[in-house]
Amino acid sequence: MRNYTQTLDHFNFGTNSYNTFLQRYAISFKYWGGANTSSPIFVTLGGEGEVVIDEFSTSFVISKAPHFKSLLVIIEHRYYGESNPFGSKEEAYKNSSTLQYLSSEQALADCAQLITDLKKNLSAENSPVIVVGGSYGGMLAAWLRLKYPHITIGALASSAPILYFDDIVPHNGYCSVATHDFRESSESCYRTIKNSWHEIKKTATQHDGLTALSQMFNTCRPLTSAEELTLVLEKIYIGSAQYNDPFYNPVDTLCEAIDKDPQEIDPLRRIAYGVNAGNDISKCLKVVSVEEMIENDRLSGWRWQACTEMVMPIECTGDEQMFETSPFNLTDYMLHCKTLFNVLPRPHWITTEYGGRNIKEVLKDFGSDIIFSNGLRDPYSSGG
Amino acid sequence: MRNYTQTLDHFNFGTNSYNTFLQRYAISFKYWGGANTSSPIFVTLGGEGEVVIDEFSTSFVISKAPHFKSLLVIIEHRYYGESNPFGSKEEAYKNSSTLQYLSSEQALADCAQLITDLKKNLSAENSPVIVVGGSYGGMLAAWLRLKYPHITIGALASSAPILYFDDIVPHNGYCSVATHDFRESSESCYRTIKNSWHEIKKTATQHDGLTALSQMFNTCRPLTSAEELTLVLEKIYIGSAQYNDPFYNPVDTLCEAIDKDPQEIDPLRRIAYGVNAGNDISKCLKVVSVEEMIENDRLSGWRWQACTEMVMPIECTGDEQMFETSPFNLTDYMLHCKTLFNVLPRPHWITTEYGGRNIKEVLKDFGSDIIFSNGLRDPYSSGG
Repeated sequence: MRNYTQTLDHFNFGTNSYNTFLQRYAISFKYWGGANTSSPIFVTLGGEGEVVIDEFSTSFVISKAPHFKSLLVIIEHRYYGESNPFGSKEEAYKNSSTLQYLSSEQALADCAQLITDLKKNLSAENSPVIVVGGSYGGMLAAWLRLKYPHITIGALASSAPILYFDDIVPHNGYCSVATHDFRESSESCYRTIKNSWHEIKKTATQHDGLTALSQMFNTCRPLTSAEELTLVLEKIYIGSAQYNDPFYNPVDTLCEAIDKDPQEIDPLRRIAYGVNAGNDISKCLKVVSVEEMIENDRLSGWRWQACTEMVMPIECTGDEQMFETSPFNLTDYMLHCKTLFNVLPRPHWITTEYGGRNIKEVLKDFGSDIIFSNGLRDPYSSGG
Repeated sequence: MRNYTQTLDHFNFGTNSYNTFLQRYAISFKYWGGANTSSPIFVTLGGEGEVVIDEFSTSFVISKAPHFKSLLVIIEHRYYGESNPFGSKEEAYKNSSTLQYLSSEQALADCAQLITDLKKNLSAENSPVIVVGGSYGGMLAAWLRLKYPHITIGALASSAPILYFDDIVPHNGYCSVATHDFRESSESCYRTIKNSWHEIKKTATQHDGLTALSQMFNTCRPLTSAEELTLVLEKIYIGSAQYNDPFYNPVDTLCEAIDKDPQEIDPLRRIAYGVNAGNDISKCLKVVSVEEMIENDRLSGWRWQACTEMVMPIECTGDEQMFETSPFNLTDYMLHCKTLFNVLPRPHWITTEYGGRNIKEVLKDFGSDIIFSNGLRDPYSSGG
């Protein structure tokens, strides 16, 4: 991994704006045809997490590198991994005065500056640049192509829900697609989950109900509220639907386990078995209290972004969907952000800055060379 | 004129970013076909000066309003005129901590936000927007179309030198075109000016030379250096070439006066007569000392912009050009900015943020609908 001396604030010119920090990036010359050929540069844009050099081997586009003789670059996003503008993560995440420079616009400008300098240093000014990314990194790839057409000739944006803002797509799209994934896997599994929320609440209010639930679900510590269990279960279902890979429990595997014993009529027992199946007996179900969740959120860069500009109005509503009903309430959302970071979200900013409503006309107009790829089972595809 | 509550900092989310200020804009419904028609909205982007409502009557595009039944809007640029983010101009221009939000990126985001809100409030979401501007306002129009294609479908950028950055065009283009304007008007006028700089210096070093020059040029106060006279004369020539309108002295008028007396062989007397011709005897030639110039610069928003991102490397070099030779020296330029505002310019930033080098390919690629109009006698056309 290499370090690039990056500008802290690209858009203002105050004293702090001139601060710099070390941004990490990785580069591989293994397949490159060289600066004098027309070989392209594939730049992977990191999202809300650390960049690991292994990513050179996993991406679809990168697998095409030998064919295109391309130079490979991965850029770590500011404030994630080691690309920390204020020394330590602790310092950078201290409050809104240090976190303020964590925004998608600054991140795109980072990429523009790094790519421009890199090409100059390699005398590769004429090499075409293709940017690639997934999820939030995919949004950045699409936006970089739109906003910096002089820097990149094309983008591959995988699973990038650039339309899940404001009122462009239905707010319950995410939960509807996740529900559909489960229902397609098994109608019975879907029904079991759908009916479980009511059962959890009912059990929790009974005498020793929380103790019974803790034992049944093999939680790592006794539950202190029904909400704790609801939160951990929803997180499991969402992880299965969104990633559907062996690291999480794929939907089919999870549903098979939930459906395993046809004799079992208690939906809670079915689910308890399902979510713990495959785990060692020693591996308990990790429960997170509301306080712990708030503490985690405070140290989450993505939560900061969600609390400033990346306001994605995800709600679980509608008769058919399987999650506990939770409408998107902007006031609550804003209050939560105020509590967490002392900031207020700007819910209309992303659509003003990047558009979305008339995306088809804009893309047609601009012959934009952006490929949007979406796994249709990914709940975020509803905004992609 | 109306006021719009504008966000101070669109790209960061610190405490100050949430400050707002009143941005002035003017709107005319006189010709508008209404929200339900396909009548367009013509938005004029103000540049580095106050917006006066008279501008509704002077622009070429606006003269087309009756034909297109268009809504007319003029937006004043932040930090100019009354669109002051910190109460008074004095307060806003105090130092780099208050001036830091004066940047082209923030100004473009202002326009994006104002236009979006305005269309929403008028239920005119489907009305196409054409942005218009001249000089710096023209650059903003072109850049708004490039950066916010979802907000505007086309731009008319008049005399917008978007390529006069970095090393895209020759640094002496401005002075060469201005020279050409004078030479085309009169070869003798051109020679007189070209030879005058040496004469000014020579005379200034003679006994009572500055007094003689002061009397000859009818300066409002005695000159204290040859440089003072050089500065005021260059300013007059540049004003004539760049604007060539009755408010300034058009090049032809100025040259006719300089050439008036064919018997006069002293180039300084010819010029003195030329620049004072048409003035009342009471109207003297205003001289500005270097100290006064620095003081004026400190209160100039455009100087701040030139000292941060709008680094246009204008130099007067080459055997043919008529101005005093002055190469562009980035180090001197930076030192001057450090003295003025305690900031250092970012000379490569504009080309990174907005491109320029491959502008033709980008525009072709994006079917961009930007009309760049240039008066070929405008010295800035060398970067347009």
